Amino acid sequence: MYLKTVLVTGGAGFLGSHLCERLLSENCVVVAYDNLYTGSRRNIAHLEANERFFFVEGDVADLEATLKNRDGKVPRFDEIYNLACPASPVHYQARPLFTTRTSFLGMLNCLELAKRCGATLLHASTSEIYGDPVVHPQVEGYWGNVNTIGIRSCYDEGKRVAETLAADYIREFDTDVRMVRIFNTYGPRMHPQDGRVISNFIMQALRNEDITIYGDGSQTRSFQYCDDLIEAFMKYMALDKAVLREFFGKPGRPCIPVINTGNPGEYTIRELAEKTLQKMPQSKSRLVMKPLPGDDPKKRKPDITLAKELLGWEPKIPLDVGLDRTIAYFSGLSS
Amino acid sequence: MYLKTVLVTGGAGFLGSHLCERLLSENCVVVAYDNLYTGSRRNIAHLEANERFFFVEGDVADLEATLKNRDGKVPRFDEIYNLACPASPVHYQARPLFTTRTSFLGMLNCLELAKRCGATLLHASTSEIYGDPVVHPQVEGYWGNVNTIGIRSCYDEGKRVAETLAADYIREFDTDVRMVRIFNTYGPRMHPQDGRVISNFIMQALRNEDITIYGDGSQTRSFQYCDDLIEAFMKYMALDKAVLREFFGKPGRPCIPVINTGNPGEYTIRELAEKTLQKMPQSKSRLVMKPLPGDDPKKRKPDITLAKELLGWEPKIPLDVGLDRTIAYFSGLSS
Repeated sequence: MYLKTVLVTGGAGFLGSHLCERLLSENCVVVAYDNLYTGSRRNIAHLEANERFFFVEGDVADLEATLKNRDGKVPRFDEIYNLACPASPVHYQARPLFTTRTSFLGMLNCLELAKRCGATLLHASTSEIYGDPVVHPQVEGYWGNVNTIGIRSCYDEGKRVAETLAADYIREFDTDVRMVRIFNTYGPRMHPQDGRVISNFIMQALRNEDITIYGDGSQTRSFQYCDDLIEAFMKYMALDKAVLREFFGKPGRPCIPVINTGNPGEYTIRELAEKTLQKMPQSKSRLVMKPLPGDDPKKRKPDITLAKELLGWEPKIPLDVGLDRTIAYFSGLSS
Repeated sequence: MYLKTVLVTGGAGFLGSHLCERLLSENCVVVAYDNLYTGSRRNIAHLEANERFFFVEGDVADLEATLKNRDGKVPRFDEIYNLACPASPVHYQARPLFTTRTSFLGMLNCLELAKRCGATLLHASTSEIYGDPVVHPQVEGYWGNVNTIGIRSCYDEGKRVAETLAADYIREFDTDVRMVRIFNTYGPRMHPQDGRVISNFIMQALRNEDITIYGDGSQTRSFQYCDDLIEAFMKYMALDKAVLREFFGKPGRPCIPVINTGNPGEYTIRELAEKTLQKMPQSKSRLVMKPLPGDDPKKRKPDITLAKELLGWEPKIPLDVGLDRTIAYFSGLSS
């Protein structure tokens, strides 16, 4: 018999839904927890028939109260994945205080639950903790360059302090937390209105609208296909805690389990726009330039040496393949 | 008639007690609020006879519940000063999670209270948000260099995200928040065991113990006497909100009201140790070196141009005078 009970906060979101799917395919019992602010029941509709799948609508800032069973007890989880937080500027800037609270209180609640259950917690951190980096590519030892009081700060600082909470739970209670700093990730079930560049370009091309490039389009991004990220999650969670402790205890490493995951392949925003249009020859869209918004990072690219060494992992899905699948998904939505 | 009701969180602490004293001297009704983790009733003993002074023991993470009157209502404040947070590495590293919670939840509670009362909120931020800076002296526009997962992060990141919360309350609700990034401040009523350099050196000299210098003593610090800081608080709070908005709205300024206060005079740690010993010729202490702890900033010095321009303020108490007063205070404690 194999039985593992897993909580996925943000389970109805883009990444959460892929993760739930993967966990179900590995015979886990999966509780997808989501407040449906950016997540959607549609993302998990194909999972709801599975008897090992449960959906709980609730806010991670209020995790314990909303997770209680009829007997008033919170279930015991073996693993917790904390993916709950608005992650696109459009969404987090619409509700900055909600975002910071979600990031902080959500993390605190997940840590407390993990500590009490003895669960292993994987926390989805972000490349945004590096802000507008002055070190390229970004290594985990880089401390970042983040504005505390700007319009992106609600997300960046919220995610930074969530890492701090995790580090202190590890030091103080030896809680088993593994952190992943996720770089730009794309794929089917991205929110069509999330304003991020891949979904933007595809949606604009589908609607024959102008494809907007902010700035001159020379800023670069790296694009990780969602399945590659989920594969990294699985490999990371499968590791023994003692292995992790030894790995991160070596000199020059961050002490606390934290790894970058992303695709180091760099594309300029202009290249991405052109590639998207090539793949959608029926579109009548054309490229237009708009001014760059505040605090937009000029360049970001992961150094994934640690993930390679620790997990034997690297991204495998080329942009061409991932983009085809994502275009197919968005085309299906709009048809 | 003059009536202003003022809440001072951390009111029984080092700075809080000086602030309460000053506010009482200006005829305010003062509620000193403190959980007494690092604060002490002794710091405010000389104020307790004043009928305009009230002390409430409570935790700022639980502000509303503990501030309630017998009728269940929270008093209406005209001004709130949020000074509640352990501020010395010895204290915050002893309770890292408590520190981060205090910083985050305390700020959130003060902001919410200020918003509901229409109160003006002065928030004590810190030079620690600059971390180990690579820009000297530090200007308010500098984003800092902070480790998210180190042993100082509980304080640094907690204070950073508190600024973020304030900035978003200002943008979202037009809450009247004024932030001060406080550089090293010293004076009577510093906690004798807070482990900070001035109290350390004086206490060691008083006890004829070795005076410990971490590293080679060439790292520099700036030392602001407490009365100078309180004077800056008073001038800052006296300004009209419209004046602030205009001042911080100008190009090249941080948009959100945030100013450095500190004394730009730089001393190496070794100079300070020697000066302290000169002032205490009866001491048998000698200087010894110890290894530098993790993430200790090598250098920090405020640029106070903004405070000068906005407040017509600059520090006036020379280190020699302030040090004499502080030595007198600590001598009185131990005798």
